[in-house]
Amino acid sequence: MNWKSDSLEKLFNPRSIAVVGASDKPDKLGALTLMALRSYKGDVYPVNPRLKNIGETECYPSISEIDEQVDLAMIALGPQYILPTLSECAEVGVKGAIIFSAGFKELGGIGEEHQRRVKEMADAGHIAVIGPNCLGAGNNNINLNATFFPHPTPMEGGSVALVSQSGGVTGLMIYRAADSDLGVSKFASVGNRVNIDFHDMLRYLRADSETEVICLFVEGTEYAREMTEELQKTTPKKPVIVFKVGKTPASREAALSHTGSLAGNSELYSAAIKQSGAIEVTGVGEMIDTAHILTMCRHRPSGRRVAIVTHTLGIALIAAQTLELNGIELPLPTEEVATKIQSMLNMPVEIPIKNPVDLLAQGWADPRIFAGAFKLILNEDQFDAVMIVFSPNYQEGIGGGVPIDEIIEASNKVSKPVISVLASPDTRKPPGHEVLEASGIPFFSSPQRAAQALANMLKLSR
Amino acid sequence: MNWKSDSLEKLFNPRSIAVVGASDKPDKLGALTLMALRSYKGDVYPVNPRLKNIGETECYPSISEIDEQVDLAMIALGPQYILPTLSECAEVGVKGAIIFSAGFKELGGIGEEHQRRVKEMADAGHIAVIGPNCLGAGNNNINLNATFFPHPTPMEGGSVALVSQSGGVTGLMIYRAADSDLGVSKFASVGNRVNIDFHDMLRYLRADSETEVICLFVEGTEYAREMTEELQKTTPKKPVIVFKVGKTPASREAALSHTGSLAGNSELYSAAIKQSGAIEVTGVGEMIDTAHILTMCRHRPSGRRVAIVTHTLGIALIAAQTLELNGIELPLPTEEVATKIQSMLNMPVEIPIKNPVDLLAQGWADPRIFAGAFKLILNEDQFDAVMIVFSPNYQEGIGGGVPIDEIIEASNKVSKPVISVLASPDTRKPPGHEVLEASGIPFFSSPQRAAQALANMLKLSR
Repeated sequence: MNWKSDSLEKLFNPRSIAVVGASDKPDKLGALTLMALRSYKGDVYPVNPRLKNIGETECYPSISEIDEQVDLAMIALGPQYILPTLSECAEVGVKGAIIFSAGFKELGGIGEEHQRRVKEMADAGHIAVIGPNCLGAGNNNINLNATFFPHPTPMEGGSVALVSQSGGVTGLMIYRAADSDLGVSKFASVGNRVNIDFHDMLRYLRADSETEVICLFVEGTEYAREMTEELQKTTPKKPVIVFKVGKTPASREAALSHTGSLAGNSELYSAAIKQSGAIEVTGVGEMIDTAHILTMCRHRPSGRRVAIVTHTLGIALIAAQTLELNGIELPLPTEEVATKIQSMLNMPVEIPIKNPVDLLAQGWADPRIFAGAFKLILNEDQFDAVMIVFSPNYQEGIGGGVPIDEIIEASNKVSKPVISVLASPDTRKPPGHEVLEASGIPFFSSPQRAAQALANMLKLSR
Repeated sequence: MNWKSDSLEKLFNPRSIAVVGASDKPDKLGALTLMALRSYKGDVYPVNPRLKNIGETECYPSISEIDEQVDLAMIALGPQYILPTLSECAEVGVKGAIIFSAGFKELGGIGEEHQRRVKEMADAGHIAVIGPNCLGAGNNNINLNATFFPHPTPMEGGSVALVSQSGGVTGLMIYRAADSDLGVSKFASVGNRVNIDFHDMLRYLRADSETEVICLFVEGTEYAREMTEELQKTTPKKPVIVFKVGKTPASREAALSHTGSLAGNSELYSAAIKQSGAIEVTGVGEMIDTAHILTMCRHRPSGRRVAIVTHTLGIALIAAQTLELNGIELPLPTEEVATKIQSMLNMPVEIPIKNPVDLLAQGWADPRIFAGAFKLILNEDQFDAVMIVFSPNYQEGIGGGVPIDEIIEASNKVSKPVISVLASPDTRKPPGHEVLEASGIPFFSSPQRAAQALANMLKLSR
């Protein structure tokens, strides 16, 4: 079965692409596909027997008329043309195919039979097929957007792979990644899964040197056992984050009619996900937040004990509650450190130092106090990770602020994750957040999202 | 006790404000306060006996030296100066005071005694006090930002009131409101609550003609019974949304040391919130989303049955699952309507029409099909609310798209809420979302957030 990973490698790193069913009418699938390929640097060959040119590009009457080797065929044709096209692909040695068209297994009956024959032909030709009934795939590190969807946001390259049954949810994952400045390696909307299902993608991505974290949106698969086995093999090497839907009656029914997938017993899925060491999340936002923290933090936590350092306790206690609801511990600082922090605060009465560690107004007004307390807490053995919670300063010339340099310097000396919450509008990220992120300290605007993502990462600690 | 609402009315609609402890040093509280008041159109009198002017504005040696009537005193002084200042406020008839300083009840012991004396003096002078240990308050409809925090985003006027114990969380609520273009009427960070607690704010806001929806972030209050009573009186008139924290050990401890508040038994709080007809939420984002849907929808649902109309079923099933997990029903369309939609889709085999109603690729490519099916579903008696789920089109000149005009026209003819999910990056809202919102159809970029907010609204139906 090893041909699948080899063929997927050609699909995700093609030197050349044929767009079969290319069109010059801007609202047709075959035109949208060409538009989506604008940033791709390899060769693109439009195929359409009724056209000589599309714009300034020569159009080929068939895939076999293309002189050069084609690695990937993007097939923008109706279901009735898929079999003959795949046959031609097999003849000329195309190794990857993307089939957008619906009209297969999701229709049942004849559709199911049709998909079976497509699978036989693809398997015989060792063609890895993404789809049918899908949005396509892509490789952001080579600007390959092999979909019919010219994305509205720039596609950042990176190390997170996104795999979804649904094309729409693939888009949603890409949007949330863009919102978080999260870089994506490969993405694929596997749709009806002719011969590339979740387990095939896991096997391929596990070996992919560009991918560090794998995200799966699962409606259901007939290969749940294989998926679980591949999850088990993958999680010791790379974190896998899974969002499984179909837990409720209407959503289960919808999954069935969507990509011909049996949602199955969601408790069995959850148990399998957990036992395989993957992280189960409950939404796309949470999935991307968790991937963000996993790719950015240079160290994995060795336990589940967190300290929160803050000057704005109301926000910190939202984070604390979210962590605790996820089974994360917030132990107290040692008496020695608590006493040192008390003396920094220099208050008229003795302030009990708990966790969250509240530095009061002084923690905002005097960055040395915040930095000093942060260092003391960071170096305490009983904490496996530290979260800072801050209301940053947007006004030039006003004192107070996050002591970014000191936080980074101290964090570089220890091998535990540090997470920052800088309460801020999503539409105006706070000054300094890029500097933190460049140093391996993920930034979140929301205490809840940060704490949920951190809790998900901490669940990976043994 | 009726003086409190009258005094709060002066506090939120002052004709003039004294800033006691005004400063010319840009990083001092008394300077930040003046900066935050830049957009306020009434008279602002800086008070500081050591300064003649601040910039070009005359500075007064004391509040009693101001010739005009002062409605609101913002007191940017240390705790030791609060009692004499309040005494002066009472003498000259100031009706509202905001005390930023910490150093009261949250310290216990002498701090508690100090706060008791402040309360006695304020009560005697009929002065409504926001704080101490707070961020302040504001009225966005008159551009009053009576805090020490010059906000980084424009403060939109509107009809949602935000009340929080924590100043930091007040900021967070304002940020999330800005992210959603949600207009705010009044906001207040009540801090240690000398004589204005949640129940006082509820009584005042219930009668406030500018406020339609009330949001509370509660750590804990000594007046839980009074809060419950006022909730019961308020919810028949205006929806109240409550986010209560302090449910877990560390967060409960933190609430206690933060604003001197007993978090109490969170199950009792939850029961009281539910019985009073308020909506309990689990986060600031969910709170703002729910307020958004409640202020924007012109009709309240009369039951809890939702239809989802989509062309992108994967995204729709996330919404469906979220609704069902919240106890919302998704009944099937009638056979008559299902048959009509089937004939619109004109597929080679019979596609079962379920709920979510999936219009397949045709629903995207042909806006008439989407509009037609939407109208049929909207007019079905068994649905109390309709959600549309769409992947909008960002590319000029490409066909397909949301049939915005038809959706608005049809929605205007029925008295049920319509919600739109246009899957999109938060950093690039999709074309047409403003038009939908201007017509009372809230827009969300996320199916999960939309479904959670809709479910919260549906829980209000009898």
